Amino acid sequence: MSHQTIIQEQVSQHPYYPKEAILDGYTASTRSSLEILVYLGLMIASVIATSIALTFRHSKKNSTDRSRIGSVDKFAVGWFAVCAFIHFCIEGYFVYNHKTLASQTGLFPDLWREYSLSDSRYLTSDPFTVIMEAITATFDTVMALLTVYGILNGSSFRHVAQFACSLAQLYGNVLYLSTNYFEGFKYTHPHGYYFWFYFVFMNSFWIFFPIFFAIHSWTHLTKAVSIADHVVYSNSQKPKSS
Amino acid sequence: MSHQTIIQEQVSQHPYYPKEAILDGYTASTRSSLEILVYLGLMIASVIATSIALTFRHSKKNSTDRSRIGSVDKFAVGWFAVCAFIHFCIEGYFVYNHKTLASQTGLFPDLWREYSLSDSRYLTSDPFTVIMEAITATFDTVMALLTVYGILNGSSFRHVAQFACSLAQLYGNVLYLSTNYFEGFKYTHPHGYYFWFYFVFMNSFWIFFPIFFAIHSWTHLTKAVSIADHVVYSNSQKPKSS
Repeated sequence: MSHQTIIQEQVSQHPYYPKEAILDGYTASTRSSLEILVYLGLMIASVIATSIALTFRHSKKNSTDRSRIGSVDKFAVGWFAVCAFIHFCIEGYFVYNHKTLASQTGLFPDLWREYSLSDSRYLTSDPFTVIMEAITATFDTVMALLTVYGILNGSSFRHVAQFACSLAQLYGNVLYLSTNYFEGFKYTHPHGYYFWFYFVFMNSFWIFFPIFFAIHSWTHLTKAVSIADHVVYSNSQKPKSS
Repeated sequence: MSHQTIIQEQVSQHPYYPKEAILDGYTASTRSSLEILVYLGLMIASVIATSIALTFRHSKKNSTDRSRIGSVDKFAVGWFAVCAFIHFCIEGYFVYNHKTLASQTGLFPDLWREYSLSDSRYLTSDPFTVIMEAITATFDTVMALLTVYGILNGSSFRHVAQFACSLAQLYGNVLYLSTNYFEGFKYTHPHGYYFWFYFVFMNSFWIFFPIFFAIHSWTHLTKAVSIADHVVYSNSQKPKSS
């Protein structure tokens, strides 16, 4: 066997890009792409169903004007619940298992092997990817859960938590997408399906919704500060009653 | 010349770590470490002097209780003004010139060559470092300036901007420090001065102050929401006067 053939052999042992990426003990998935997407869809659907049930139970218990949950907030409960699930369970699984992910068997390793076609950094313990996902799996998860709790309980920290979660999601995702762009998308399989559907479309959710929710919270918080400042100022101006 | 000597020769052309890092057209600085630190100190001192002058002018113009600037806010004006200067001028310079920084002459290239002894990623166009600094030079700068403006003008967005700036600084710096740690500090010169003074001590400012100011804003914002919610609720409960 020539030197050329040996390199060719080693290179074609996995379908990821760049071709020369080293995936320790790489084992192919046992599930098909469709099967993996169906499982992911079912998990997300059950999180959405749970959040709808929570919102419904809340509406039945609290029927006053003050505690009514508006349509944006209903959507926010679903969105942040799904985020908490994905950040903690799926991305947390990656952070905890990044060293052996390429060689593992099971649904989550299959899911990551599928997604990694759009970004092989998930199978090579890329330092930036591991640390960014560690922040996502801890900080973003806590802030997402506080947002859900805050909406259902009318907590005063709700919009601060929502703003923190959205900003962190945006920061992480902009860095994530831009670093791959900066390196000419060398980590991405050139097939349009992996680039457009997995890398661009799936990640775009964590660009548009964080922008929407960050603006939503910014507006709400500045309005609250205006009202509060006015109240505090008016009270300090009132003549003291003896 | 043996093969070993040639490699040795190439490797010792620059004092950075890892030794094999490729620094295109590397040119040594013309200023000493002390000279560079003095220049940096003078620039920061003039920003602080300007912010003290601004705060002082504001105090003379506005002497009502409402517009008085407390001691934490006075400190915040200085801190965020210094941040805006460093983020935009120094870090912005790096973002704009990262490709040729190692070979440039001048104060800012000297400054970056000095700091890079604690982290060579600044001289090698490391993708994560460039993108993270691009976010810092734009988003963090805008938020820092809005915070300074907001404090001096009593704007309702001040604490939201302060929270956004602090959170972004914290996210960027935690990622920055952790990725180097993750790779065994391979980008850092092993001399204690570069590791402890430049890498640990200098960066620790952007860990502790962002945590302090994020908590400061979180507290202020949740309190404002509590007051505003109470006001809006009380008003909606009042019997309508005809």
